[in-house]
Amino acid sequence: MPVKRYLPKKYSGVIILTAVVIITVLGAAAYQFFTNNQELQVERLGKIDANEVDPAVWGQYYPLHYQTYLQNQENTEKPSHFETKPYMEVLYAGLGYANEFNEPRGHVYTLEDIRAIDPSRYKVGASCNTCKSTQIPGLIEKYGDEYYTMSFEQINSQLEHPIGCLDCHNPETMELRISRPALIEAFERQGKDISKATRQEMRSLVCAQCHVTYYFLPGTKKVTFPWDNGVKADQILEYYDQKDFSEWTHPEAGTGLVKPRHAEYEIFLGSTHESAGLACADCHMPYMKIGNTKVSSHYWTSPLKNIEQSCGVCHREGNAWLESRVRDIQDKTKELQDIAGEAMVKAVEQLGLARQTEGVDKELLAKAQEMHRKGQWYLDYVMVTNGYGFHNPTESMNNLGKAIDYAHQAIQLAKDAMDKAN
Amino acid sequence: MPVKRYLPKKYSGVIILTAVVIITVLGAAAYQFFTNNQELQVERLGKIDANEVDPAVWGQYYPLHYQTYLQNQENTEKPSHFETKPYMEVLYAGLGYANEFNEPRGHVYTLEDIRAIDPSRYKVGASCNTCKSTQIPGLIEKYGDEYYTMSFEQINSQLEHPIGCLDCHNPETMELRISRPALIEAFERQGKDISKATRQEMRSLVCAQCHVTYYFLPGTKKVTFPWDNGVKADQILEYYDQKDFSEWTHPEAGTGLVKPRHAEYEIFLGSTHESAGLACADCHMPYMKIGNTKVSSHYWTSPLKNIEQSCGVCHREGNAWLESRVRDIQDKTKELQDIAGEAMVKAVEQLGLARQTEGVDKELLAKAQEMHRKGQWYLDYVMVTNGYGFHNPTESMNNLGKAIDYAHQAIQLAKDAMDKAN
Repeated sequence: MPVKRYLPKKYSGVIILTAVVIITVLGAAAYQFFTNNQELQVERLGKIDANEVDPAVWGQYYPLHYQTYLQNQENTEKPSHFETKPYMEVLYAGLGYANEFNEPRGHVYTLEDIRAIDPSRYKVGASCNTCKSTQIPGLIEKYGDEYYTMSFEQINSQLEHPIGCLDCHNPETMELRISRPALIEAFERQGKDISKATRQEMRSLVCAQCHVTYYFLPGTKKVTFPWDNGVKADQILEYYDQKDFSEWTHPEAGTGLVKPRHAEYEIFLGSTHESAGLACADCHMPYMKIGNTKVSSHYWTSPLKNIEQSCGVCHREGNAWLESRVRDIQDKTKELQDIAGEAMVKAVEQLGLARQTEGVDKELLAKAQEMHRKGQWYLDYVMVTNGYGFHNPTESMNNLGKAIDYAHQAIQLAKDAMDKAN
Repeated sequence: MPVKRYLPKKYSGVIILTAVVIITVLGAAAYQFFTNNQELQVERLGKIDANEVDPAVWGQYYPLHYQTYLQNQENTEKPSHFETKPYMEVLYAGLGYANEFNEPRGHVYTLEDIRAIDPSRYKVGASCNTCKSTQIPGLIEKYGDEYYTMSFEQINSQLEHPIGCLDCHNPETMELRISRPALIEAFERQGKDISKATRQEMRSLVCAQCHVTYYFLPGTKKVTFPWDNGVKADQILEYYDQKDFSEWTHPEAGTGLVKPRHAEYEIFLGSTHESAGLACADCHMPYMKIGNTKVSSHYWTSPLKNIEQSCGVCHREGNAWLESRVRDIQDKTKELQDIAGEAMVKAVEQLGLARQTEGVDKELLAKAQEMHRKGQWYLDYVMVTNGYGFHNPTESMNNLGKAIDYAHQAIQLAKDAMDKAN
């Protein structure tokens, strides 16, 4: 007699398939659980070393976060800024920026890209490595303030890892932390204690270690944030004016100029999004679902690449509409930026002509250069800040409007200086 | 024996009070029901006449809407624009606007205010009454196109009622409707049938009958919207350029200029709020609760006066934050507007000097005037549009940036024209 069958034979295929599916799902879930459970990893691999500079080692403890970190490799292009902003070459004359200046590719490429760029870009020295590697805080600790006066190669030759986990995280607790001295010191000079920042503030401040404007303190070459009067474009310019500081003199215009750098943090402060309580990480590190785990993305890029997870969390109007609003802001900003850029080139040319004019009115020429200094500052402040104006549309466009005005004032004063030549 | 008391004497006061409250509430509700029930009103008063121009008559049918309409009387101030924008007096020289130009007080004051203003402001004639009274559509029907060529007084002397219900509503169905020919005709010339507009579109289009820029067609003096190329500032300027149209010649600069008027509808199109599906009425006519009835407010004013009911319906961040965001936009816009205004005054002065220069280079002078025409158009387009830039911040600031650039180009070209005088 055959063994009693409880189910007809025709169902056995379904049963086997179901069993396979259940086992696969449970297996995958178990794998995810074990590889993502920090305590289990610590038991298996030991603690992450307090000075672990290699992101791949952290990746063994946090494979999903590391997976998103590796996505930063996807940004392979680094087009020249000059393709879309040809006026930059004229405005940066005398600086390494005029020789080569590319759009940024992201954190995993910091070392590769600084080693590939025209050496005129890092002639200040070691300081230019400060935001390029997880190894820098250790080296600053090792050399003290001497770090800043060493040569570029003395530091760069020691570097193996680009920007990574250790730059923002405490390896023991995973809490956010500040690893770069310049930000801590800038807060101190303003009478603020950065260690008292809330977690939400820290979700911007870890970015503000590098995504800010800075200069190299004359003499010590120490990386310094020019924030003592405040972080807005006019307040920073006032800071430089008060110190009578110029980073370089424009060879054609003869103007002592100051150079803003990617002031994302500064321009974001006071914006609609920031004043509504958002941090950099809310848009640039949205929560992504990988398998059944929620992970804060460590792929730092335009939120437009993940509108659903970034903008879409608050704004429910749909991806196409959201993108069109961002583009509208960026296009209108770019239009003013181009107008300002072209006017500034004319200012440089007119200043060049005035300087070659015999007996030129020196006082008017100096006034013209003062207008050039102001105008180029306001233009450059918007031009080199990532986001194409989106981080703070009204402030960006306001700055550009002023840049246009100052550029033309420089032109007119330079002409007046020529007209009054004796 | 005393009558048996079911409740102790000490409760009788409470009972009486409760009864009074119930009777009062029921009475008020009944009053509201009967006075707000259109069918009951029609039964009592008869239908609203198809040509009823008096808002007070409509008010008998809709006392709560009428109550909000009467709130428009609260705006008693009409400060001069010149107090905050002194450059206007120079820029409008040769036009009535230079003699007197006040901030608007609102719909209930239209007749009172036009009768009080300097007569140079309405020297075009009857057309200047077109947006001042509910009686206009009837008069246009009565006189036909002759209406536009009549004198200001011929029409104005017939007017008793300011802007009111009949301007936007069909008295029988209360549906929104267009009563002014210029808007219907502008749509027709663009190949669009305004009668096919959705209700939500109508909630902006009834406003667009008047809150738009317009000009008086040369010869016929007919009120005409310059929208054939589109409604954006550059498209409207191109329209005027193609027709070689100037509204007046600036006496000092000699420039043939065009004058924008309160282009609220045009600048709102393509804004964040409009592209998100909002109509003028969503912010300017929010639903208010009066007693137990929901009424669309007919008090047309800044939504900042009712942030809770206007902005607060979508934005939940609180009144103080919302107001601060609006002020940020308006302040940054005003700052650029002032820069543009001052540069434009200098352009006018420089053009004046150039014109007085013997043997001035006529070609360069004409180019300078072309830049003045463009620049003043872009500035004026933002300057006279209510909302201080808020209706479309990026477009407003973009227009102002262009105005600054054109103003300075005018200055430089005028100087060049003088330098090349033979």
